[in-house]
Amino acid sequence: MSKFWSEMAKRAEPYVPGEQLAKKNIIKLNTNENPYPPSPKVIEAIQNELHTTNLRLYPSPTMDELRTTIGAYYGLDKANVFVGNGSDEVLAFAFMGLFDPGKPIRFPQITYSFYPVYAKVFNIDYEEVPLNDDFTLDVERFFESVGGVIFPNPNAPTSIYLPLHEIERILEHNKDRVVIVDEAYVDFAEASAATLINKYDNLLVVQTMSKSRALAGLRVGFALGNNELIKGLIRMKDSFNSYPVDRLALVGAKAAIEDETYFREITKKIIQTRTWVTEELQSLGFKVLPSQTNFVFTTHETYPAERLYEALRQRNILIRYFKTKPIENYIRITIGTDEEMKQLIRAIEEIIL
Amino acid sequence: MSKFWSEMAKRAEPYVPGEQLAKKNIIKLNTNENPYPPSPKVIEAIQNELHTTNLRLYPSPTMDELRTTIGAYYGLDKANVFVGNGSDEVLAFAFMGLFDPGKPIRFPQITYSFYPVYAKVFNIDYEEVPLNDDFTLDVERFFESVGGVIFPNPNAPTSIYLPLHEIERILEHNKDRVVIVDEAYVDFAEASAATLINKYDNLLVVQTMSKSRALAGLRVGFALGNNELIKGLIRMKDSFNSYPVDRLALVGAKAAIEDETYFREITKKIIQTRTWVTEELQSLGFKVLPSQTNFVFTTHETYPAERLYEALRQRNILIRYFKTKPIENYIRITIGTDEEMKQLIRAIEEIIL
Repeated sequence: MSKFWSEMAKRAEPYVPGEQLAKKNIIKLNTNENPYPPSPKVIEAIQNELHTTNLRLYPSPTMDELRTTIGAYYGLDKANVFVGNGSDEVLAFAFMGLFDPGKPIRFPQITYSFYPVYAKVFNIDYEEVPLNDDFTLDVERFFESVGGVIFPNPNAPTSIYLPLHEIERILEHNKDRVVIVDEAYVDFAEASAATLINKYDNLLVVQTMSKSRALAGLRVGFALGNNELIKGLIRMKDSFNSYPVDRLALVGAKAAIEDETYFREITKKIIQTRTWVTEELQSLGFKVLPSQTNFVFTTHETYPAERLYEALRQRNILIRYFKTKPIENYIRITIGTDEEMKQLIRAIEEIIL
Repeated sequence: MSKFWSEMAKRAEPYVPGEQLAKKNIIKLNTNENPYPPSPKVIEAIQNELHTTNLRLYPSPTMDELRTTIGAYYGLDKANVFVGNGSDEVLAFAFMGLFDPGKPIRFPQITYSFYPVYAKVFNIDYEEVPLNDDFTLDVERFFESVGGVIFPNPNAPTSIYLPLHEIERILEHNKDRVVIVDEAYVDFAEASAATLINKYDNLLVVQTMSKSRALAGLRVGFALGNNELIKGLIRMKDSFNSYPVDRLALVGAKAAIEDETYFREITKKIIQTRTWVTEELQSLGFKVLPSQTNFVFTTHETYPAERLYEALRQRNILIRYFKTKPIENYIRITIGTDEEMKQLIRAIEEIIL
């Protein structure tokens, strides 16, 4: 601790992202990136922007075009859309603008590990709600929160999806508090809660271009919600950084939303791969939680998760392992290409058999 | 005010950036952008990154390569460099990580208008130190601050530079508090305080690629300082957003730093234009403050500033006007190309003569 650090810097417990190894020949299944490149139309749109001399000019601080495009995609208005530098930044603004110190919020005990990080840095008390034994959310324990609710759907790293009628019960029992549904993986699942926005003014849906749109490297995330919630996020952005999304990211993200054919194609492919990978793992003695994401969360009946993680790492296959109860014997594996997953299965066979 | 907003959202007084008009045929001299395009090597580096399929992968959260490049440019180590999404984000992290509620900081009364915005949102008390009558900083009134000091050098919107020996006096009289020198415009001035970093562990220098490197559209800023100060900023970033700078911005910014020849050429050109524009304005009855930036701050002996701003706007020339005492009769004009500035001078002649 430095004498120059603020109290905020001292109490912070920073998030540790999955490794980004520069090493070649690695099979990278540790940060839930898309194994396929972004739509060729994204590259084309960025090329076109590069050929203007506009890079010398600030981007649009209001991002109207991209917000209109995203809104139209969900049947919503621009005023229902907030755009930020990845969904992590959107979540940070949501913690700042919609949750309050002294009013405890609730999130699942096993969930995206950035939530407690935001809560600590912005001094927001929180209650961690244990999952049910089957790792589903214990819905009623989110009712009547003091300060609000946040959970991913599907949840991470469990990969389990909560149906919309259950989400509606949480919304109905938190009428005066904000409920944030963090849908980073929802394009690999049944349905988005975006359809509930006109019905519930306390619902904020957060999404990202990093997973299903294959644009983790471009840093674009967004939130959908009632006009008043969006205004609250805009107030935070404009008190922090007027232009968090650059010119290339703005045009690239717009092109990604517009190319629905490509998006559907790669999403379908990932879901197909997920299906056979799940079956293969099961046949090798793994229990695989029912995934509606682009990863699987799994445990082997005898082989310890941490040892498997290490052994795969030595074979240049990176997956994610969390040394946290009660998931300390699970591993999280991103769905890669068919070829990558075949190599993974082969490596696992070599290790455990 | 929405019932869903936090106290932070309610007390926020968001920054209002200069207009980004989409309109064609406008001469845009209102946000201090560079009139020249970025180095061709920046475009080339972004093209190369685009031709990989890496956009699907997260960028480096530690940004080692860019930090090493920037460090080398200033004779510093990677550990002395922090990179963020524009210098506004860097400043936001600095307010969060290095200043504290209850310990008033000091900044000039006439200065970058984002400082009070950060202070309000993060609940940091502040004292605004009046400028001297000639608009220079009243150095001794920054001595022995309770919570720290921040000022731009050159100051904005006055354009006036404070020599390094005066900055050293402020540093020496604030040994246990952080002094932030915000050098957005320093490449158009005498010298950076970066050379003082090894001498003063309480000095943080903040810079941007948006002005002299012609990359406002790419969103890259950085801070230079003692290892401990940089660690404090990294703690804030990693409690907020692991990857605020995207893959294209990382390679573009690196190429911009490396192409020193191009950088020197456009910077020299802007300074030359500033010289003749100053003389022209003086010959038309303007008082022009001695600028060491890529803009001039000026007042006419008889013609009111606000009327001049409006009249130029009607002629499709955008400049910046702040309706704030004691600068309510000044206008800020970004230095554009020679051709743009000739048109500006012609328009001013038409208006005031």
